[in-house]
Amino acid sequence: MPAPDETKTLKVALLGAGNVGAQVARILLEDADALAARTGARLELVGIAVRNVHAPRDVELPRELFTTDASALVRRADVVIELMGGLEPARTLILEAIEHGATVVTGNKALLAVDGPSLYEKADAARVQLSYEAAVAGAIPILRPIRDSLAGDKITRVMGIVNGTTNFILDQMDTTGASFADALAEATRLGYAEADPTADIEGHDAAAKGAILASLSFHTRFALEDVDCQGITAVTAGDIAAAKDAGFVIKLLAIAEKLTVPAAEGADDAGGTTTGVSVRVHPTLLPREHPLAAVHGAFNAVFIEAESAGELMFYGQGAGGTPTASAVLGDVVSAARRLVLGGPGRTETTTGVLPVLGIDAVTTKYCIGLDAADQPGVLARISALFAEHGVSIETMRQTVHRERDAHDDGAGGSAELRIVTHRASEASLAATVEAINGLDVINSVTSVLRVEGV
Amino acid sequence: MPAPDETKTLKVALLGAGNVGAQVARILLEDADALAARTGARLELVGIAVRNVHAPRDVELPRELFTTDASALVRRADVVIELMGGLEPARTLILEAIEHGATVVTGNKALLAVDGPSLYEKADAARVQLSYEAAVAGAIPILRPIRDSLAGDKITRVMGIVNGTTNFILDQMDTTGASFADALAEATRLGYAEADPTADIEGHDAAAKGAILASLSFHTRFALEDVDCQGITAVTAGDIAAAKDAGFVIKLLAIAEKLTVPAAEGADDAGGTTTGVSVRVHPTLLPREHPLAAVHGAFNAVFIEAESAGELMFYGQGAGGTPTASAVLGDVVSAARRLVLGGPGRTETTTGVLPVLGIDAVTTKYCIGLDAADQPGVLARISALFAEHGVSIETMRQTVHRERDAHDDGAGGSAELRIVTHRASEASLAATVEAINGLDVINSVTSVLRVEGV
Repeated sequence: MPAPDETKTLKVALLGAGNVGAQVARILLEDADALAARTGARLELVGIAVRNVHAPRDVELPRELFTTDASALVRRADVVIELMGGLEPARTLILEAIEHGATVVTGNKALLAVDGPSLYEKADAARVQLSYEAAVAGAIPILRPIRDSLAGDKITRVMGIVNGTTNFILDQMDTTGASFADALAEATRLGYAEADPTADIEGHDAAAKGAILASLSFHTRFALEDVDCQGITAVTAGDIAAAKDAGFVIKLLAIAEKLTVPAAEGADDAGGTTTGVSVRVHPTLLPREHPLAAVHGAFNAVFIEAESAGELMFYGQGAGGTPTASAVLGDVVSAARRLVLGGPGRTETTTGVLPVLGIDAVTTKYCIGLDAADQPGVLARISALFAEHGVSIETMRQTVHRERDAHDDGAGGSAELRIVTHRASEASLAATVEAINGLDVINSVTSVLRVEGV
Repeated sequence: MPAPDETKTLKVALLGAGNVGAQVARILLEDADALAARTGARLELVGIAVRNVHAPRDVELPRELFTTDASALVRRADVVIELMGGLEPARTLILEAIEHGATVVTGNKALLAVDGPSLYEKADAARVQLSYEAAVAGAIPILRPIRDSLAGDKITRVMGIVNGTTNFILDQMDTTGASFADALAEATRLGYAEADPTADIEGHDAAAKGAILASLSFHTRFALEDVDCQGITAVTAGDIAAAKDAGFVIKLLAIAEKLTVPAAEGADDAGGTTTGVSVRVHPTLLPREHPLAAVHGAFNAVFIEAESAGELMFYGQGAGGTPTASAVLGDVVSAARRLVLGGPGRTETTTGVLPVLGIDAVTTKYCIGLDAADQPGVLARISALFAEHGVSIETMRQTVHRERDAHDDGAGGSAELRIVTHRASEASLAATVEAINGLDVINSVTSVLRVEGV
């Protein structure tokens, strides 16, 4: 390296001193010398903007750094680290930083999932770098590998465990046989679930990260609204047990994949095909030997399939103040090195505009749980119905058998059936499920879970 | 991105058209448009230097690109991809490229493991970029994450399964109970082992990669000679079975870790401590729940422990023409993007000079296999000997019991014992093993394996 000019200083502004921000500040201060050696310039933390200067912090930080005037702080900085979260005032401050010519490092997945595209364009136009590794999968380097290391490859599919709360809950249910409610209570007790866990358990957090991963992986731009999202609240202990018996595990996955489907009728290329990308979040059955099945507790992992590289997986802690701070500091040092070397920063490339495909375009395997009358001929009627709708059955297992109750009204006993299909389209599967619900011998459809990795 | 000047062309020279080179050429030609869109300039393959223009190739490539004059080709190029392997003429050609101001992308682990330091310095001095993701762990992005994503963190330990041949063999032995010889034969049959597998099974290949990983992870420079290396040729089916019984798996790991040891006597800071790095390759026992234990067949994975990020793992295919080509192309596009944007390329940072510590500095747990006389008092004598040498025993299990043979000379039956120690230094363990060998009740020490991940 050219002899580093260690008297050169870069002014760093930190917006937010919460869970992650406090750790970033701590590391910038405690490791200032090591960071300076690696960067080639001193990273001087010149201010920390917060809403309430007197709020208690996880880390003891110099009182004189705190300010409530985030805007003024941004205008003094070479590098702005935005860790406030939320849409505003984060968006406005990021735009001010870009306008001022400051490099921006953010972890704001919610903002990027809805507004990423316009922010990336503005950063590119201003020739400033906007980095956001911390927005997806905490400590795990994933965005930089996708953008840079796989720049010469073609990603075909991304499957991510990107929400630690839901992975902990499902893993707990799998390990202990607990109900969803009990596992959620344990997650809350241990701090893996927030007081209001809605964003996590309904899959919205995973969906935001899925949109960001999809955008980078497929060189086009997806937003939260493009993601088909289903959380884990309907997953039962029975589903988990049946999965386990059959050699599967249930994970909440964010899945982005390139698909080629018949072009819509009436479209210019009707009769031809359309290639696009589907982005979805839902509970998914995976074989227990799949690398993603070995991801326990609140850990995250992103599994990528690329044309040349084949299968790759990136694993680590998806959240937490200090792990996420690692991702922030990686972006800060990388961007700062570029400022020291000179020359324009890296830009976002959007080279394709692949259309968003809805979940209807997806073909996958399904596992359907049924509560059916335990009578002769039921299996035959169910099979026939599937066949009518063009869905082939791979396996059918009876998992529970309940005897006729002597006191009941003469109805027979019932059986719980698990049916795994061959690959089928969402549309045909939905039609099949509707038809099954109409059969008199079916008490209820207890679950419909998609199956991947087989 | 600023409107890409797609009429701008970068001249790419390829040195070598073997396993990996042929695939790199294929991708450069087949995906020229997609690569141009991502790079912002056309990547024009202007020549492929080989020893024998008429040799059969894995891929059909345009005959007019081939040349035997590598030196002339290098001098025409903006980007030189070296995939010849071996020390010379690769080293000379890389130096010519650097002198000529061309960006260099290489996969040459053997060369980098012995000569990396001087090549990095020359590239830095000439302000050209030297990238080598393909030199370690095939398709898996690992060097870029370490260098860039973890730039703001402090790595404390790296444990890698970086040789597919040995991982396949050990995994085969674990899955099927095969002997080492049979597993090696199967590996050879399937193409996971070369005709002469020495470099792989003796651990030299893993050691070269370990040196490169250690250099990047600890911001200092290690060479092949700094690595304590032991291969898998002494691992037996009995070792694997005993490990399995106890809930462990055996993997060949390259381990680089930062250690603090008492300073040597007579040194300036005698009485103080020395912090350095130990780099070693040897068969290792890991708990079956460890993420590295889920790495099967010829897959590779690198497990990193960092101060802020915590545990991370990068998993994927460690070898193969097309997977490795992905890593090469990632480096090519990344470096080319920089050439298009302008400004100096990234440089290597060596900010520390952490001393190399030999394996004597390591403290770890050990699993020792003994063939002992099956007599009363033997366990007591063994325990006493361990205690004398300061090594604590964690568990002792008798795994096999052989009856006294009626025809033998009156000696008793024998027992196979497996002893797992608490953490102990290499020195005390070595002394213990030597003393044990001297006991009359010990027939032989059948194996000594280090244990990690517990």
